[in-house]
Amino acid sequence: MTKFLSDNAAAVHPAVWDAMRAADHADNPYDGDALSAEMDARFTDLFGRECAALWVATGTAANCLALGTMCAPHGGVVCHEESHIEVDEGGAPGFFLHGAKLIHVLGTGAKLAPDEIARTIDPIRDDVHQVQPHAISITQASEYGRSYSPAELKALAAFAKERRLGLHMDGARFANSAAFLGGSAQDAAQAACGGVDSLAFGFIKNGGMNAEAVILFDPEAANHVRYRRKRAGHLQCKGRYLAAQILGMLEGDVWLTNAAHANAAAQEIALGCGERLMHPVEANELFVRLSASEREALRETGFEFYDWGEDAARFVSAWNTRDEDAVALGKAIAAL
Amino acid sequence: MTKFLSDNAAAVHPAVWDAMRAADHADNPYDGDALSAEMDARFTDLFGRECAALWVATGTAANCLALGTMCAPHGGVVCHEESHIEVDEGGAPGFFLHGAKLIHVLGTGAKLAPDEIARTIDPIRDDVHQVQPHAISITQASEYGRSYSPAELKALAAFAKERRLGLHMDGARFANSAAFLGGSAQDAAQAACGGVDSLAFGFIKNGGMNAEAVILFDPEAANHVRYRRKRAGHLQCKGRYLAAQILGMLEGDVWLTNAAHANAAAQEIALGCGERLMHPVEANELFVRLSASEREALRETGFEFYDWGEDAARFVSAWNTRDEDAVALGKAIAAL
Amino acid sequence: MTKFLSDNAAAVHPAVWDAMRAADHADNPYDGDALSAEMDARFTDLFGRECAALWVATGTAANCLALGTMCAPHGGVVCHEESHIEVDEGGAPGFFLHGAKLIHVLGTGAKLAPDEIARTIDPIRDDVHQVQPHAISITQASEYGRSYSPAELKALAAFAKERRLGLHMDGARFANSAAFLGGSAQDAAQAACGGVDSLAFGFIKNGGMNAEAVILFDPEAANHVRYRRKRAGHLQCKGRYLAAQILGMLEGDVWLTNAAHANAAAQEIALGCGERLMHPVEANELFVRLSASEREALRETGFEFYDWGEDAARFVSAWNTRDEDAVALGKAIAAL
Amino acid sequence: MTKFLSDNAAAVHPAVWDAMRAADHADNPYDGDALSAEMDARFTDLFGRECAALWVATGTAANCLALGTMCAPHGGVVCHEESHIEVDEGGAPGFFLHGAKLIHVLGTGAKLAPDEIARTIDPIRDDVHQVQPHAISITQASEYGRSYSPAELKALAAFAKERRLGLHMDGARFANSAAFLGGSAQDAAQAACGGVDSLAFGFIKNGGMNAEAVILFDPEAANHVRYRRKRAGHLQCKGRYLAAQILGMLEGDVWLTNAAHANAAAQEIALGCGERLMHPVEANELFVRLSASEREALRETGFEFYDWGEDAARFVSAWNTRDEDAVALGKAIAAL
Repeated sequence: MTKFLSDNAAAVHPAVWDAMRAADHADNPYDGDALSAEMDARFTDLFGRECAALWVATGTAANCLALGTMCAPHGGVVCHEESHIEVDEGGAPGFFLHGAKLIHVLGTGAKLAPDEIARTIDPIRDDVHQVQPHAISITQASEYGRSYSPAELKALAAFAKERRLGLHMDGARFANSAAFLGGSAQDAAQAACGGVDSLAFGFIKNGGMNAEAVILFDPEAANHVRYRRKRAGHLQCKGRYLAAQILGMLEGDVWLTNAAHANAAAQEIALGCGERLMHPVEANELFVRLSASEREALRETGFEFYDWGEDAARFVSAWNTRDEDAVALGKAIAAL
Repeated sequence: MTKFLSDNAAAVHPAVWDAMRAADHADNPYDGDALSAEMDARFTDLFGRECAALWVATGTAANCLALGTMCAPHGGVVCHEESHIEVDEGGAPGFFLHGAKLIHVLGTGAKLAPDEIARTIDPIRDDVHQVQPHAISITQASEYGRSYSPAELKALAAFAKERRLGLHMDGARFANSAAFLGGSAQDAAQAACGGVDSLAFGFIKNGGMNAEAVILFDPEAANHVRYRRKRAGHLQCKGRYLAAQILGMLEGDVWLTNAAHANAAAQEIALGCGERLMHPVEANELFVRLSASEREALRETGFEFYDWGEDAARFVSAWNTRDEDAVALGKAIAAL
Repeated sequence: MTKFLSDNAAAVHPAVWDAMRAADHADNPYDGDALSAEMDARFTDLFGRECAALWVATGTAANCLALGTMCAPHGGVVCHEESHIEVDEGGAPGFFLHGAKLIHVLGTGAKLAPDEIARTIDPIRDDVHQVQPHAISITQASEYGRSYSPAELKALAAFAKERRLGLHMDGARFANSAAFLGGSAQDAAQAACGGVDSLAFGFIKNGGMNAEAVILFDPEAANHVRYRRKRAGHLQCKGRYLAAQILGMLEGDVWLTNAAHANAAAQEIALGCGERLMHPVEANELFVRLSASEREALRETGFEFYDWGEDAARFVSAWNTRDEDAVALGKAIAAL
Repeated sequence: MTKFLSDNAAAVHPAVWDAMRAADHADNPYDGDALSAEMDARFTDLFGRECAALWVATGTAANCLALGTMCAPHGGVVCHEESHIEVDEGGAPGFFLHGAKLIHVLGTGAKLAPDEIARTIDPIRDDVHQVQPHAISITQASEYGRSYSPAELKALAAFAKERRLGLHMDGARFANSAAFLGGSAQDAAQAACGGVDSLAFGFIKNGGMNAEAVILFDPEAANHVRYRRKRAGHLQCKGRYLAAQILGMLEGDVWLTNAAHANAAAQEIALGCGERLMHPVEANELFVRLSASEREALRETGFEFYDWGEDAARFVSAWNTRDEDAVALGKAIAAL
């Protein structure tokens, strides 16, 4: 069986194992160790602007801790109605934000744009009876594998600033967008990040084991997250193993190489999809129109994947997808 | 430098590394993998009664998720005033329990007993103006390295049942108590656990990396925890690496051997402490009366440890404490 | 100026004043007074089935306290996307339910029906990643002044029971629906209530000052609400003045008479609206298609009301709307 | 029977009734009416410094809403271990502050002083494992009927400022302290208030029905409270009746006269208590050493009051306590 179910359960990259092993000696507990202390500098270098970087074990925690710095319990977070925080995090934002509201916006390819956001929030009466927006959350790459361009991010940041809203980026597949946008590690990271206030930088789907980075471009926000991370039971005493995973993937740009590989596999598959593609492939996910019988045929050939509604399927490539498997899948779809 | 600061930052045991490595292949995400699925049966076997077992990354999360099954937001959890959930979890119980109250009780050696609990909760008026106790939380081994005996646990369980209170055990160093109480793995586990409703079974301080087990002896409570674990951002997508750690330590009773080793080291140190000991040593922690100058002298000899107030020090041994270091520390204290 | 803005700021009915005055002597504090103690029996008699009745000062608190008995923090409440709890309570459900989610459903006239609810909740995957529905909240009369018929309520109750969901009724204008459905006080109340599990029975818009009744048909739920009411700062020490308001309106069926009067006024107005009516008038609210210039003309004649979007207006009659004013408004609209 | 149980269930003062009646005409809903709009100016005048004033129905809500402006969910509020917010508000602070912690401090007469607070908070480690104090809450008059002097308040404000802690005053019996400190209404109010950041100014125990004022000396905090008041279900649509109560008691200094009357009654009683008094009488509460048989004897004479532990009783006078009853009680105690 060749799995295209998701990248979220793939094996761990050798560089990550090596980095964890290298951390296997006594050091200070929690985030007092040498590796955790190194993170701020490494990400500041990558993004070319001052930031704080904290490890947590899941993307859900990363998103919610970051959003907690910009949305009060009585406020709201603008997000796409199909965003992961709305649909797939088991109500975690409601928990971490103490009951704050998610305000749903539409948008092609699960992407948000200022005009659509304005269409939703402008009618909100400026009174205490209606929950006021405090922040915007976007997903890079989006839930449909679309990447925001630097121009789109610039427009969103300007809009957020004008409306005095925080701007957060759920970057569970941030690396895939960075690789899609291209350039050196620094260029790619900065292009994919734009001017957001915070970023949940995903490593797990991209070869890590259980470490994501919360990136905060406001130092005061970082202090907030430090207290809330502990309070949420997310401060691990052997945190150095999480820092090691992240630093191990930054070292030698493993994060970018892995993502580029997954993206390339997705493009291979896309070659066979033609008009079946529901969205442009701008990361490592494909949404493909396939009838029930076509999906059955593909599965009998040995491919694993999720149904997407009744007439489509989702395929996800990963850092360790074999080229030949991607090619084979593309051909199999083309042959349907 | 020889570290007796804490067991919470020790290296990871080889058996844990091996088990994690063996899990390094694709499987279902979250807790849908084969290893996670095995946990219930393994712990049911160990404790000799039906239970569900879920992994989480920290003891704080383990305690809070378990307590959430037995205390409503408007209720209270009885705990020792020096308990870890009260003093050292950054307010996590307030977060996970949505504002429930911790009700402080006194007790020698940070242990609770029915009469002391009654002295605190009996005066609580049975009306809506006062927060009513819903649960009791005890720590095995206690914050002062004391272990509850089976008889003490029996009395607490009976009391809890009579008062219709849930009974939770914070077992960050459960293995050390089990080893102290002795016998086969099953005998030791059952003796140390008694009749509690839930247990946060700690593996991290005892050789694990970042996996603790929430043990729930009520199946309905387990379902509650499953939803709340996700909601708290604690459901890892590559959860099999956490299950692997736990199963790796259950296999061949590594958990018990490691704890016994740490306990033995603590006893070695205790030999040199005599009257200086503030508490009987029933696990792997020692609280020793030492003046500032004595502590300084010890540190100059190369020992690392925490001050405990102004006139004492805390020493913690670990699964990988070398015998000769423990002996040396004991002698150094005796020689003061 | 003749106000048809809302019934929520109308004067207080003389019977309510009299009842409050009659309570102006020392009695036990909180809900320990004779009047508060009488409420359960009075509502049990009215609804013909055992219930507990607790006063609170606002409909928002009444709804949220009731919903708190049927929805856990990790669950969701199904409601109309234009329901008051979703749109106009400042995020109160998120606060009282500790972050639980409101699950939006469509429906004509802001009413819910089993098939629409099923269309929304059936696709929710039965896993921990998606918030599961725990309860349904309906509004009687609806936000568009529509009343649920006994048959509709029966279907909803059956659906809720089948899906194991709690069923709550926001009855801010419950009396108006009861009056619309007709019959004796008991017949009308029972017809309008159906088989819901809880009801926020509104008195304030109908002539009260600041007392609503939370009606709980499950005695255990009532105990829950008692603790939560105190915890939310809603247990008034001179609660007898709230009980007095409610009992004063039950006495002699003032509640039904007042509502019938407001409904009749609405029907008078409706006579002049013809095709302009956006919804059948089944309570005391009218939504009327009126251009900006038509609205301006009406206002110049001395009528006050709210715009409803860009091409319509909302008129609300009250217990003290004068007949001649309603007739005049109807005629003025007809004359446009 | 002559009731000295509490002032919290006393009848409503005629001036309050009159003010409510005078508000019995249509006006804007919520706090958009003329009376609510007047509150800021009236309290700014009284306190001699800019403030915002919002009505709520209970002291519990008033305290919690004010504290919410100065304590984050991960912070703590320093309070006396016998303070009302700790002991008698059903866990409301945990609810309104989203799980923040109450940090208990000792102090004679339920009063706090900087040195005692420092003794408690100085040992709190400045790290994420321990809940950091964000605010201090004091009670004027204290839970034992003691009043803070201007000098004591000045010291507390300086301490709070130095430690960057918010300072809140629970003024359920603020008027009684003001009357005790003496002078004109403005002098008394300012003396009793000192330099706190917020005040829950109680009117209910002093002749009101169900309106307290939240006074915020920081305008931004007031905006916070406006949203949170709605979110907590405390924004009444006929809010003018609450504003009326408060303004009715400010008018002609009814609040001060009432409190002075209650205080005088307490002093009358105190005359008979001599050495039995457990605390100086500085407001309208008396704590008196009385054996069980002595209490029984008093009750047989027709006095009602609460036991205070096993060897004492609490007596509370009110705005409408008759002089002769106070005198009689004093004599009855003296005669024991």
